Amino acid sequence: MSDKPKFAVFGGGSWATAIVKMLCENLDEVGWYMRSKSSVDFIKKNNHNPNYLSSVEFNLKQLKLSTDINETVSNADYLIFVIPSAFLSQELEKLTASLEDKVVFSAIKGIVPETSLIVGDHFNTHYKVPFNNIGVISGPCHAEEVALERLSYLTIASADAEKAKCLASVLSSDYIKCNISDDVLGTEYAAMLKNIYAVAAGIAHGLGYGDNFQSVLMSNAIREMKKYVKKVHKMKRDINDSAYLGDLLVTGYSLFSRNRMFGTMIGKGYTVKSAQMELSQIAEGYYATKSAYNLNQQKGKKKAKTPIIDAVYAILYENKDPRKIFKKLTEKLD
Amino acid sequence: MSDKPKFAVFGGGSWATAIVKMLCENLDEVGWYMRSKSSVDFIKKNNHNPNYLSSVEFNLKQLKLSTDINETVSNADYLIFVIPSAFLSQELEKLTASLEDKVVFSAIKGIVPETSLIVGDHFNTHYKVPFNNIGVISGPCHAEEVALERLSYLTIASADAEKAKCLASVLSSDYIKCNISDDVLGTEYAAMLKNIYAVAAGIAHGLGYGDNFQSVLMSNAIREMKKYVKKVHKMKRDINDSAYLGDLLVTGYSLFSRNRMFGTMIGKGYTVKSAQMELSQIAEGYYATKSAYNLNQQKGKKKAKTPIIDAVYAILYENKDPRKIFKKLTEKLD
Repeated sequence: MSDKPKFAVFGGGSWATAIVKMLCENLDEVGWYMRSKSSVDFIKKNNHNPNYLSSVEFNLKQLKLSTDINETVSNADYLIFVIPSAFLSQELEKLTASLEDKVVFSAIKGIVPETSLIVGDHFNTHYKVPFNNIGVISGPCHAEEVALERLSYLTIASADAEKAKCLASVLSSDYIKCNISDDVLGTEYAAMLKNIYAVAAGIAHGLGYGDNFQSVLMSNAIREMKKYVKKVHKMKRDINDSAYLGDLLVTGYSLFSRNRMFGTMIGKGYTVKSAQMELSQIAEGYYATKSAYNLNQQKGKKKAKTPIIDAVYAILYENKDPRKIFKKLTEKLD
Repeated sequence: MSDKPKFAVFGGGSWATAIVKMLCENLDEVGWYMRSKSSVDFIKKNNHNPNYLSSVEFNLKQLKLSTDINETVSNADYLIFVIPSAFLSQELEKLTASLEDKVVFSAIKGIVPETSLIVGDHFNTHYKVPFNNIGVISGPCHAEEVALERLSYLTIASADAEKAKCLASVLSSDYIKCNISDDVLGTEYAAMLKNIYAVAAGIAHGLGYGDNFQSVLMSNAIREMKKYVKKVHKMKRDINDSAYLGDLLVTGYSLFSRNRMFGTMIGKGYTVKSAQMELSQIAEGYYATKSAYNLNQQKGKKKAKTPIIDAVYAILYENKDPRKIFKKLTEKLD
């Protein structure tokens, strides 16, 4: 890796677009891979993403756009993956370039369905990226507010603090502040779990529960997240730090979160299939629910008590009546 | 006190009205003192409070309404005070009946300005109510959702668990669940502090900060509350319980909270005086800010680090520019 490492972003959605924007505040050159040729052509002609954060104008001189994932990988040292976990595996199948010498940061929330692995573990197991070269970019951060340059805080987690600091230095700006963390697993799991709790908040909303109950649900959710993450990776952490509680709140209280919206539709009586068809974007919380539930069940007697995840699982995967399941859930919360 | 204790509510606002409604779900007789004769007359004629939660219909046979505070005190064993802290002292001056044998619960959030005491301490110091007879009713709970009979959780705190349970039993219903706690001071201070944080959330909103920042602010607020409450009363508590975090969230994220609204006006450039005039109800957070700040300052070197409270204090009481103060605050948050 040269003295001045090169950075590239993989993905064409709103969060990918937001991260490219952040990098462009500091770097002369940013690699950007996206699958869609028509999107790349559109950006080259119109200076903005056709589908996401289209208000963000890019300076084309800074962008090294490509639809060839291997080209973008070869030209960069730090690879930032922002492809929905459900599509990650099929995108990575195109890889011929090696990732062994790359620093890989994931800004993806969730589990890779094909391998049931969290993103960092997926890169380590299947692409031989050493754990010391793996990190996570986490919120609390809606991409839409990055587009508006509203002050936002990110958490950059890596086992190697130098790599986290390096990435933080090129993401930080007037409107982006970065916290450094060494809790890669905790941050990654928390980012996944919060989407399940956002689905739960949506279901409650859809069923007609009000703000009083939502605050009780979120207060129970953060305690449940603390227990869950502790089982996965025990270390000293304050679950009320922005990366955990902040990230839960920005998602759980957001009316624009697609996870919350998906939950709301389920609460209002949509089937999972019809809710999914109605939403144009993937609700990560749907996949996260299955992964988180199964992972916990595998621990047998050592599993964490997770009444909220269990309730969402029963509704989404066992076709149980949301009204009855939530009625029972309310008895378990305090 | 008889086997079947008698309950009375003191206050005519929305939270008082909500508590009377809860009690009426379980009791044949509920004492209800309010200052305004015209309100009492209105309720006797129309079965509902003219100004607050007017959708709630009362059965007059259950209500023992009075404008004579001594009459209501004499007729009850459990006294529930729901008078804004700024008016409590002057209302209690009317008392000739003794409170020494009464159980006193406070549903008031704040400090009594005349004595700088939290409500429980005020009753103990000035009305000789033993601490064992003192308790607190706390949220997370908007009165408006009680009117709609939306599921809500209360926390009933008392040093004497039996008294907390007794009150909980007459407040609980299909839509009200009660948690019991022995952390009277922590619950009372948390209920006061959350109003300051709601003012802070409002100021941020008024200044144009977005949801990403709000989640960071709330995540820092709960950590600040934990430190503050620990200094006041050290005991084993989980600050993420509903009485603390839940109460913070329901207020901080509510667009209807008058504390948040007050803060929003300050953030938009209103003076304190004009914001107060514009709002018809008292923003408890305004008084709480002064009390909490001064109480902390008195601890000298042992004071808690409270950058958020300090920022709100500087804006409200030292006439500092909200924009500059919040810009500085953002450097201290993480």
